[in-house]
Amino acid sequence: MTIAPASVLGEHELALRERARQVIPGGMYGHMSVQAFSSAHPQFMASGDGCRVTDTDGRTYLDLMCGWGPVVLGHRHPGVTAAILDQLERGDCLDGTSPVAVEFAELLVDTIPSADWAMFCKNGSDATTTCVTIARAATGKRKLLVAHGAYHGAVPWCSLRGSGVTAEDQAHLVRYEYNDLASAEAAAAEAGDDLAAIVVCPMRHDIKRDQELVDPAFARGLRALADRTGAVLVLDDVRCGFRLDLGGSWEPLGVRPDLSAWSKAIANGQALGAVTGIEALRDAVRSVYVTGSFWTAAVPLAAGLATLTELRKGVALPDMARTGARLREGLAAQAAAHGFEIRQTGPVQMPMLSFAGDEDFRLVTAWAEAAVERGVYLHPWHNWFLSAAHTDADIDAILARTDEAFAAVQG
Amino acid sequence: MTIAPASVLGEHELALRERARQVIPGGMYGHMSVQAFSSAHPQFMASGDGCRVTDTDGRTYLDLMCGWGPVVLGHRHPGVTAAILDQLERGDCLDGTSPVAVEFAELLVDTIPSADWAMFCKNGSDATTTCVTIARAATGKRKLLVAHGAYHGAVPWCSLRGSGVTAEDQAHLVRYEYNDLASAEAAAAEAGDDLAAIVVCPMRHDIKRDQELVDPAFARGLRALADRTGAVLVLDDVRCGFRLDLGGSWEPLGVRPDLSAWSKAIANGQALGAVTGIEALRDAVRSVYVTGSFWTAAVPLAAGLATLTELRKGVALPDMARTGARLREGLAAQAAAHGFEIRQTGPVQMPMLSFAGDEDFRLVTAWAEAAVERGVYLHPWHNWFLSAAHTDADIDAILARTDEAFAAVQG
Repeated sequence: MTIAPASVLGEHELALRERARQVIPGGMYGHMSVQAFSSAHPQFMASGDGCRVTDTDGRTYLDLMCGWGPVVLGHRHPGVTAAILDQLERGDCLDGTSPVAVEFAELLVDTIPSADWAMFCKNGSDATTTCVTIARAATGKRKLLVAHGAYHGAVPWCSLRGSGVTAEDQAHLVRYEYNDLASAEAAAAEAGDDLAAIVVCPMRHDIKRDQELVDPAFARGLRALADRTGAVLVLDDVRCGFRLDLGGSWEPLGVRPDLSAWSKAIANGQALGAVTGIEALRDAVRSVYVTGSFWTAAVPLAAGLATLTELRKGVALPDMARTGARLREGLAAQAAAHGFEIRQTGPVQMPMLSFAGDEDFRLVTAWAEAAVERGVYLHPWHNWFLSAAHTDADIDAILARTDEAFAAVQG
Repeated sequence: MTIAPASVLGEHELALRERARQVIPGGMYGHMSVQAFSSAHPQFMASGDGCRVTDTDGRTYLDLMCGWGPVVLGHRHPGVTAAILDQLERGDCLDGTSPVAVEFAELLVDTIPSADWAMFCKNGSDATTTCVTIARAATGKRKLLVAHGAYHGAVPWCSLRGSGVTAEDQAHLVRYEYNDLASAEAAAAEAGDDLAAIVVCPMRHDIKRDQELVDPAFARGLRALADRTGAVLVLDDVRCGFRLDLGGSWEPLGVRPDLSAWSKAIANGQALGAVTGIEALRDAVRSVYVTGSFWTAAVPLAAGLATLTELRKGVALPDMARTGARLREGLAAQAAAHGFEIRQTGPVQMPMLSFAGDEDFRLVTAWAEAAVERGVYLHPWHNWFLSAAHTDADIDAILARTDEAFAAVQG
């Protein structure tokens, strides 16, 4: 491989990394810690505009991560920014809830067929945790069916990393294999009469693994299993929500969850999560106590209202489907031309690319680093995200650079 | 009692309540659900400015809740707003961390003597949960000493409400009595060689209970107990932080925690939390996986940087101590003049008032409702918060109204 060395990192980036190392353990933590995936990606970003982000050394990248999902309309979308500024003029964290909470709840209920009500929080894990708390309150039962390897947040009850987590935190998880209905049925049998909820993502998007679309029969089977056992069907739509189908990511299949967890794209980057659910669970919601200091802060809710209003115009999602398809076709042609066998998995709006036989991710990492060095920000083993700000011309500009990246790793 | 009936709620408020009931279970949830504490407080707030909030019917209140804590400099503080607008011009939720994360971490480390590093999150419960995860990772042990009745968040491991929470979620909590060192020693003995952390608030601020300042000997005793057992001392400074002492709420006692959880006032109302800790725990932080989609979003960090920069000028905290004392003295004189025996507890910057013998909170609720009907927003059985926006004149305006409230409930 002949890609440029990681010494291409700029001086501001290097200086910030050194400062960060002093005051933030490891220089950064969590999913944004670039040490976990790259020696070429900048750790720091100075600004964003539409489908472009600019690092602290002034280098601009075509953005295929979109803030790792939240930015669905593009960075600094004018309509969302106007809503933020307007609400800031009035207030944010007030003593009572802002009317915008009601307006946004009404719009969610109007948009999502399985939603008879909504409530708000800050993180995706707030939303998933609230869902399982409601499910347990509603059923009086404890067991949660969760797919092997599925990410539902980085909090003790669902963390995929053991450090600092006790066995008791996850004592009531029963694991099944995604898209394997028999395994879910077996897990439900193991839970017996103590089954509270079946928790599932709209597709399999586990880290460091090709994505896998849901088998419609599996989705329908889980719905039937929940109905048969009295379990609550919880759809974790945190990552996919508001990008694939505004009514919920399983709406095209006709499979409706009892509870849905939302976050990421819900407010185009402002900190917000939501739980929506069916009428029958309203009393259970009233019985639980979940809250947070900023859960009904007005500015993120105003951003959410503006984001969903824009998405409902019906342009953004078809646009992402079209540009996503264009990107996928272009990458496929490039890989073939360069003699690589690649896999592109998941929905086109949430692309993921892997190389055949690249079990240790060395090739895809080198390719991703080559792409970022050429001005396309993407990830080697986490899915990417498109936004409505990506035009066909942007996709073509991305493809011009990825073509060079394929050439660079051809060796 | 002769206070005005709750029918004083305005038409916009009543209409919003009806709409909310349709789309939000119970009309609202969590600490902001006014049904839990009042028939006179508005559920909805339209705007805030300095130490005033205005409801949806245009009624303005002198604000003694400050967004339930976050608003330490006053609503829409010009310096914080300028920082928000400046960062919004560049970007918020980017693919990498903004440099402002490093700047703010540096300022926290410079401000807080027990902080050798910092990391950021969104909720207070993110911060407390991260602290216990780090403590368990560092020690390889599981038990957490937690005070009876102490609030550390509304997530399963520390929730004070049973609905939807399993016994296993709290299997490793060992309870002690606040300010009773012998009970903490006994709890540590019960935890034996499995003790990971001692979790404690800077003062006792349990709901529906007079506040109780920490006994300095208790604080020093917990520090010694942690040192003796190898447990991590976690100070939950979420509610008190940045209002009593910028170095941490136990800094005046000379008792330094190993880990501190921060949120609420850290960014004057923007959604942000933080964990700070000592050098010895840096490796443990690196071993855990905690993250969230918006944890390093730039706008709340810019607000935090501006807030702490303002607080470090040395004016805001002394101001709150002075206005808090003025309020306490005024309320004491009024109560005596009206023949009431009241208790005022906790630090003056975080006032709480109760009436002697008012076990069912009927009298304090009537008084609080009379106050809100007269234009002072305060809570019957949760502590209040002062901000730096409160002037002596504002306190006097508050006192003019609370005097009427005392008269109203004298009846």
